[in-house]
Amino acid sequence: MSYFDVASSAPLHPVARQALVAALDEGWADPARLYKEGRRARLLLDASREAAAEAVGCRPDELVFTSSGTRAVHSGIAGALAGRRRVGRHLVVSAVEHSSVLHSAAAHEGAGGTVSEVGVDRAGAVSPEGFAAALREDTALACLQSANHEVGTEQPVAAVAEACRAAGVPLLVDAAQSLPWGAVDGDWSLLAASSHKWGGPAGVGLLVVRKGVRFAARAPVDERESGRASGFENIPAIVAAAAALRAVRAEAAGEAGRLRELTDRIRARVPELVPDVEVVGDPVRRLPHLLTFSCLYVDGETVLHELDRAGFSVSSGSSCTSSTLTPSHVLKAMGVVSEGNVRVSLPLGAEEAEVERFLDVLPGVVRGVREKLGVPVAGEDGGEGGEAESVTVDALGMSCPMPVIELAKAIGRVRVGGTVTVLADDEVAAVDIPAWCWTQQQEYVGHSTSEAADQGVAYVVRRTS
Amino acid sequence: MSYFDVASSAPLHPVARQALVAALDEGWADPARLYKEGRRARLLLDASREAAAEAVGCRPDELVFTSSGTRAVHSGIAGALAGRRRVGRHLVVSAVEHSSVLHSAAAHEGAGGTVSEVGVDRAGAVSPEGFAAALREDTALACLQSANHEVGTEQPVAAVAEACRAAGVPLLVDAAQSLPWGAVDGDWSLLAASSHKWGGPAGVGLLVVRKGVRFAARAPVDERESGRASGFENIPAIVAAAAALRAVRAEAAGEAGRLRELTDRIRARVPELVPDVEVVGDPVRRLPHLLTFSCLYVDGETVLHELDRAGFSVSSGSSCTSSTLTPSHVLKAMGVVSEGNVRVSLPLGAEEAEVERFLDVLPGVVRGVREKLGVPVAGEDGGEGGEAESVTVDALGMSCPMPVIELAKAIGRVRVGGTVTVLADDEVAAVDIPAWCWTQQQEYVGHSTSEAADQGVAYVVRRTS
Repeated sequence: MSYFDVASSAPLHPVARQALVAALDEGWADPARLYKEGRRARLLLDASREAAAEAVGCRPDELVFTSSGTRAVHSGIAGALAGRRRVGRHLVVSAVEHSSVLHSAAAHEGAGGTVSEVGVDRAGAVSPEGFAAALREDTALACLQSANHEVGTEQPVAAVAEACRAAGVPLLVDAAQSLPWGAVDGDWSLLAASSHKWGGPAGVGLLVVRKGVRFAARAPVDERESGRASGFENIPAIVAAAAALRAVRAEAAGEAGRLRELTDRIRARVPELVPDVEVVGDPVRRLPHLLTFSCLYVDGETVLHELDRAGFSVSSGSSCTSSTLTPSHVLKAMGVVSEGNVRVSLPLGAEEAEVERFLDVLPGVVRGVREKLGVPVAGEDGGEGGEAESVTVDALGMSCPMPVIELAKAIGRVRVGGTVTVLADDEVAAVDIPAWCWTQQQEYVGHSTSEAADQGVAYVVRRTS
Repeated sequence: MSYFDVASSAPLHPVARQALVAALDEGWADPARLYKEGRRARLLLDASREAAAEAVGCRPDELVFTSSGTRAVHSGIAGALAGRRRVGRHLVVSAVEHSSVLHSAAAHEGAGGTVSEVGVDRAGAVSPEGFAAALREDTALACLQSANHEVGTEQPVAAVAEACRAAGVPLLVDAAQSLPWGAVDGDWSLLAASSHKWGGPAGVGLLVVRKGVRFAARAPVDERESGRASGFENIPAIVAAAAALRAVRAEAAGEAGRLRELTDRIRARVPELVPDVEVVGDPVRRLPHLLTFSCLYVDGETVLHELDRAGFSVSSGSSCTSSTLTPSHVLKAMGVVSEGNVRVSLPLGAEEAEVERFLDVLPGVVRGVREKLGVPVAGEDGGEGGEAESVTVDALGMSCPMPVIELAKAIGRVRVGGTVTVLADDEVAAVDIPAWCWTQQQEYVGHSTSEAADQGVAYVVRRTS
């Protein structure tokens, strides 16, 4: 088996495992107690905090351990918003943040706050200018990830942090994906991260709040972790998390170069090996180990299933997977194809041979899925012979990727300059039909909603070649 | 070393350790993913949920794993209150709940809700009638622990649950201390517990919400654990927690009898061995492994320190310990002495010889602390010779246990029927002077606050013997 999904969760690093097992015997007592076992637990907790702070690049008293990265994000956002409530209740986030940030934003809106989402370019990055423009007099907090979890694109954190400083707005950085690779540059105010993403155990997150940042932890709280993370400290896991972060950092320099070569290879080879593929995310400013591509005319779930059968564990931002019913908000914000989406995130130590085997297997997997769905083979769709001025395709009741497949079949039936209208009620079509036009260099004219509710949406595409 | 503080945190049970180490290799992946590693993690999670549900006595789909017992309490209370917001915003709790419940209650009050605290008797128990009387038309939720964490007294949960059912109010039971010993009786609606209290790892709590109970998880939430506990599931720890609960339950029947004998022995012997001691908590309706006593005229921190030096790890609800500045709210609500408080909670497998050694060591420890503080030796206080009608003692600026020591010295100087007035500004005196009167069978007349702020409070005691 080749596990290529460390962006979801990394296997436990051997150093973490060793530290965890050792700390089970030393770190189970209450660090607030005065007796020997408590003092021993306190020492472990303090040492872990120092190690983690050093890796983050902050003071130990600025860092608390939370029960997960999600909790760090939720608590960080809630505490920073509450701390600056007198300034206002406006929150700025990028459109491609992790769901934990967007859930916090939705909760803030539900409680009467306001939220601005800053859009991204087709590579998935915000522009510092665009981000700065969203900051207002009443902005209490801004949030930006260090690198995107689905496509790997690095965000211009340092420039955005500078703009936030200039506006007097604290910036919270979700560093979950990038922290194993290095400290986050720039003058940020808060930072959140998650241990199981870097090879530490689950159950540990980091929340850093720089000195001087106004912060009011959301009640109820207790006396643990400076009142910022309630509940009994999970010290063995914290010890393991800190040890893993140090170990991973020590390996990062060498592995970053090696994995970047492997992911560059996949990025280059996949479009050569598989027709109608879009590789997404910034080709250069990106995480070293992660890449994402979308295969037109296939559904993500079947691709994942077939790759799993072939021994590869990857994930997908497509809508057609068991745990999500809507396509990835990241791909949607980027305006790229979401169907047949495959994210590959290589673990430390991933071998070249595994990557080569993946490149051997992938074309057959995609071909097989397309054949089952009756997708016309590229170049054999009779595209040259179209004569109709316009064609309407009824894809009502069909779900991703069928509306796009119907569109691809129909485009060859109209003359160059003619239009295809696709009637579809699958909401993914709103993302994938324009994205298909972009990849196929056809013109997306627009869409209109029918008066009859059961007629779905009409998407109009003009054949340009 | 004898670790006698499992009520704070139990050492990891060998079964938990084994399960945890095994699950590190099998349970690190995301259980929401479709590939092999994810399916394996999901299987472990499902099996753990079933095992835990069986031990609790609920359906697996009623139980979610949280990141701590504190989190289970916080989320359970917030969710139940939100779910019944249309009924009203009144919350009923006992006065001796764990701080996590009281913190939730304070947060609820801070957000505009109302809270009633139900008092307890001198043994620490609520009465079902008293609890029922606190339920109102607008009561959204009631909370009662199954057994008290500081004195071990069991609460009449089944009777209170019945009263709550009759009033249409859901009852949340904090079962943190009793769950290792057995399922909670009665028709409760919600239940919270904590793995590290039963020998499982830290980082795992249980929240049970019975079918039909209105519940609205507090935002932000994600799709994990039925939307009731956000953040990546800590599956290795969950597996270990469930395994430990089963293992502990298998041992509980035998150990309960054995440990009850040992704690009965301590309860009986300590007052024989140490003068001026009050053993607190219900002598019969109590947890088998836990007992608490208070030693007059000593401070808790010094006693803990000396016991630690002698090889015993215990805890204290006294005010004079490093992590708390106020005396235990439990002891205060019971109206018992809080100074020199010692809680002993025996681990599974605690040996008789350890207990005997504790009984050997304790008298000398208490005597030593009293000597340092200049406490009159019992029977040598010249109590027979008092002639004054009234004496005023200035204990301003003195902290626990000094005001009570000054009172004890002075009582012998007045005639029977005469009064001692103690001026004190340590707030603990308000608890300990009346409690001292009760244990010494003297009459507590009352207290009055001086007009001059710096004169503290005047406590008046009448000598009756």
